[in-house]
Amino acid sequence: MTPTSRRGFLINAAASALTIESAVAIAGGEGKPLSGPAFDEQRTPVPLPFDPKNLNGLSAKLMQSHWENNYGGAVKALNTIRSRLTLALNDASTPAYVYTGLKREQLLRTGSVVLHEYYFGNLGGSGKAGSEVRTKVAASFGTFDAWESEFRKIGQGLGGGSGWVVLGYNIHTQQVENYWMWDHMHGPAATMPLLVMDMYENAYAIDYGASAKDYIEAFLKNLQWAEVERRLGRAQKADTALRG
Amino acid sequence: MTPTSRRGFLINAAASALTIESAVAIAGGEGKPLSGPAFDEQRTPVPLPFDPKNLNGLSAKLMQSHWENNYGGAVKALNTIRSRLTLALNDASTPAYVYTGLKREQLLRTGSVVLHEYYFGNLGGSGKAGSEVRTKVAASFGTFDAWESEFRKIGQGLGGGSGWVVLGYNIHTQQVENYWMWDHMHGPAATMPLLVMDMYENAYAIDYGASAKDYIEAFLKNLQWAEVERRLGRAQKADTALRG
Amino acid sequence: MTPTSRRGFLINAAASALTIESAVAIAGGEGKPLSGPAFDEQRTPVPLPFDPKNLNGLSAKLMQSHWENNYGGAVKALNTIRSRLTLALNDASTPAYVYTGLKREQLLRTGSVVLHEYYFGNLGGSGKAGSEVRTKVAASFGTFDAWESEFRKIGQGLGGGSGWVVLGYNIHTQQVENYWMWDHMHGPAATMPLLVMDMYENAYAIDYGASAKDYIEAFLKNLQWAEVERRLGRAQKADTALRG
Amino acid sequence: MTPTSRRGFLINAAASALTIESAVAIAGGEGKPLSGPAFDEQRTPVPLPFDPKNLNGLSAKLMQSHWENNYGGAVKALNTIRSRLTLALNDASTPAYVYTGLKREQLLRTGSVVLHEYYFGNLGGSGKAGSEVRTKVAASFGTFDAWESEFRKIGQGLGGGSGWVVLGYNIHTQQVENYWMWDHMHGPAATMPLLVMDMYENAYAIDYGASAKDYIEAFLKNLQWAEVERRLGRAQKADTALRG
Repeated sequence: MTPTSRRGFLINAAASALTIESAVAIAGGEGKPLSGPAFDEQRTPVPLPFDPKNLNGLSAKLMQSHWENNYGGAVKALNTIRSRLTLALNDASTPAYVYTGLKREQLLRTGSVVLHEYYFGNLGGSGKAGSEVRTKVAASFGTFDAWESEFRKIGQGLGGGSGWVVLGYNIHTQQVENYWMWDHMHGPAATMPLLVMDMYENAYAIDYGASAKDYIEAFLKNLQWAEVERRLGRAQKADTALRG
Repeated sequence: MTPTSRRGFLINAAASALTIESAVAIAGGEGKPLSGPAFDEQRTPVPLPFDPKNLNGLSAKLMQSHWENNYGGAVKALNTIRSRLTLALNDASTPAYVYTGLKREQLLRTGSVVLHEYYFGNLGGSGKAGSEVRTKVAASFGTFDAWESEFRKIGQGLGGGSGWVVLGYNIHTQQVENYWMWDHMHGPAATMPLLVMDMYENAYAIDYGASAKDYIEAFLKNLQWAEVERRLGRAQKADTALRG
Repeated sequence: MTPTSRRGFLINAAASALTIESAVAIAGGEGKPLSGPAFDEQRTPVPLPFDPKNLNGLSAKLMQSHWENNYGGAVKALNTIRSRLTLALNDASTPAYVYTGLKREQLLRTGSVVLHEYYFGNLGGSGKAGSEVRTKVAASFGTFDAWESEFRKIGQGLGGGSGWVVLGYNIHTQQVENYWMWDHMHGPAATMPLLVMDMYENAYAIDYGASAKDYIEAFLKNLQWAEVERRLGRAQKADTALRG
Repeated sequence: MTPTSRRGFLINAAASALTIESAVAIAGGEGKPLSGPAFDEQRTPVPLPFDPKNLNGLSAKLMQSHWENNYGGAVKALNTIRSRLTLALNDASTPAYVYTGLKREQLLRTGSVVLHEYYFGNLGGSGKAGSEVRTKVAASFGTFDAWESEFRKIGQGLGGGSGWVVLGYNIHTQQVENYWMWDHMHGPAATMPLLVMDMYENAYAIDYGASAKDYIEAFLKNLQWAEVERRLGRAQKADTALRG
């Protein structure tokens, strides 16, 4: 380490969870600080793919706060957690159950970041599903209405709490299904999200207070079905690649 | 039952999971039962891809019980839950928060089924990672040892409880990472499992009692790295298809 | 429905929440409906113990919505769940993992009902803690400020999600501690709540949007410390009775 | 600080989560380390209240491992977490969401410690409930058998995973109920445990493998009903004190 990078490292270390001994050891070059994308990756927020002023029944104030505070906050927290994980893993005195406390936070923030990007990505549309995507959804649910009826019901069941409703393609079982997810950490194994609805109260309380029902209505009115169709097409392409 | 108490009971029953009225209506053909794979799919267990007698330090008794009772039980429960979801959704009197109770069970059992299939799928090997897969893992974690050190630590932190450790490829963030998962319902959004270790106690207690550490050792000795490499290759192929 | 498909459907239905057979059996008087407070209890909402117009920095609109929709909704849901539990337990075809799905909902709603009653019960005050209660809190935390500092930090950590912060007296360990609780179902074993802060977003988003920090400030300004002191006194009396 | 105690403090600090700056500041006397039972309490394990060789259908090996590894491990982890919480709270650079990761671990370990003490405390008996306790249980559940039927069903539903079944007295609602608890962190608000059954797999896998059903049978055969009755009596005494 050059003196400059060493100083930078110490400043960085000062914000993190490590013991005196290990910090000194690492700074002194005896330790080998972990590196690589799994430890170093620092993410930046993806801008909203639509003008928040143009949504129908979802205010710019709500969208801006949701994007900035909840999604933006998750990006920032994920970056911080990643630094702390690196230092905690480098420190042999970290008990495994303290380390996994940080890994839980990483899982939570990863879920929040990824699901929010899918969520904002499927907003900004007219809510009108083209006949092709309707047919594809119906292939799994019998009818398009059966899909919508279940999707809404799951959303309602999450009202007043937190969670996500996700129409997903399960790469392993090759099924298209609606999933109930209790918080950012929940999610079906091996699944690509196709259509994502945020049911955390920060997704609607500013506009709709406790009325999850009215929010679900508004969400569906602003759905960008072209994006859902694109994701479904990509899932099918990926699936072909996987089976081929 | 006196006629009076019977009447009271019927009124009470009218508020229940499948009401008599709706049961009769459905049975009489007035309801339109939901259909399609999302509602009908019935799964059968995938056989063990190795002879359980041939593992090194993991007994055939443990493997058989794990496969039959825990994985097999999950397949059966998932099938049952799917039937009940269909009937509950068909019944307009089902409160959303009762419906989501069943969706939670579906998420739990889906996680169990899918993750167990990945888990058994990556056992039966020699535990020796080829140089190509080592290099690929090192590309994300700096060194192969750094990966292993974190993977083990997460496993240790889950000892005495339940959960999974998953090395996964996140389709959205394009990262290869180790994830901590508290139970079958937890999982990172948009992630393809590459290497899966079961930390539920039923994965080891028969052989190792409370010693999660010895189990992790045994698990790693029986890892089928060729399968992990195959999954990594497929993930890269799918990724190319997705970006293309 | 053709006779054949109807027969198929009936076979399918036989695996469901309340089967036709059992519904008819119960309706016909052959079943013995469960009774007793554990199965029958129907709860009514407790009115707000203060005039919501008189709070300082927490609007009447927020309080009314919180009380009516979130607390009131939980009371209603708990009553419904209790009826469904009774019927599900009476029906021998209910799988244990479907039954526990309803028990989970009971735990969730019980937590919501009980904690909300403690929460509203410790609001409506001046936020000024008398010297006696300060001394008692300091006896556990070294200083009153140390308590407040931890209490606020836990609240902050729950911002943007859901959960509760509870200062509680643990009957078993005889400790007074602050607890982090992730949702209505979380809670320390054997603990009497002394001071309860709701961190679900429905407790503040209407007034403060995403700013958990400002809400915590407002909450503390409206704390009814006399009630906290009364609860502490009662806990001590109960403790004496328990040890005597 | 004397040089000796300062050295002790540094050694202690070396095992914990703090920054170089704050450790030095604290060691140098500039910081004010938090103290008081909420931060300092160190617990020691309570011995088994029965001879593990004398149980009927639960082996001494299982009991010893359960007591030593799972319960004993929780006591140790709780003590460690408490030290780390103190240092993390003292360090202003600790993000709230890192702090609450530690508070989660504290909740988890507190639940484990307390529930295990109740669990071992109600074992070592003949499984025969006296007529007085049967009558008291029946007062809540209609019949004693209805209680047992629900208690067993909840246990079955937790088979293959983790969790607790608790017959508890809710101080706030004044109800005696069976509760489903998913892990050590789950629990009904304001409830005194009366009868506690551990459904973590470490409570039975050594003896019964995957057969939760056989374990429940064995557990009930070894129940110490006199202790349950004593707890019920104490709960009633505490209740009278609380209402008086």
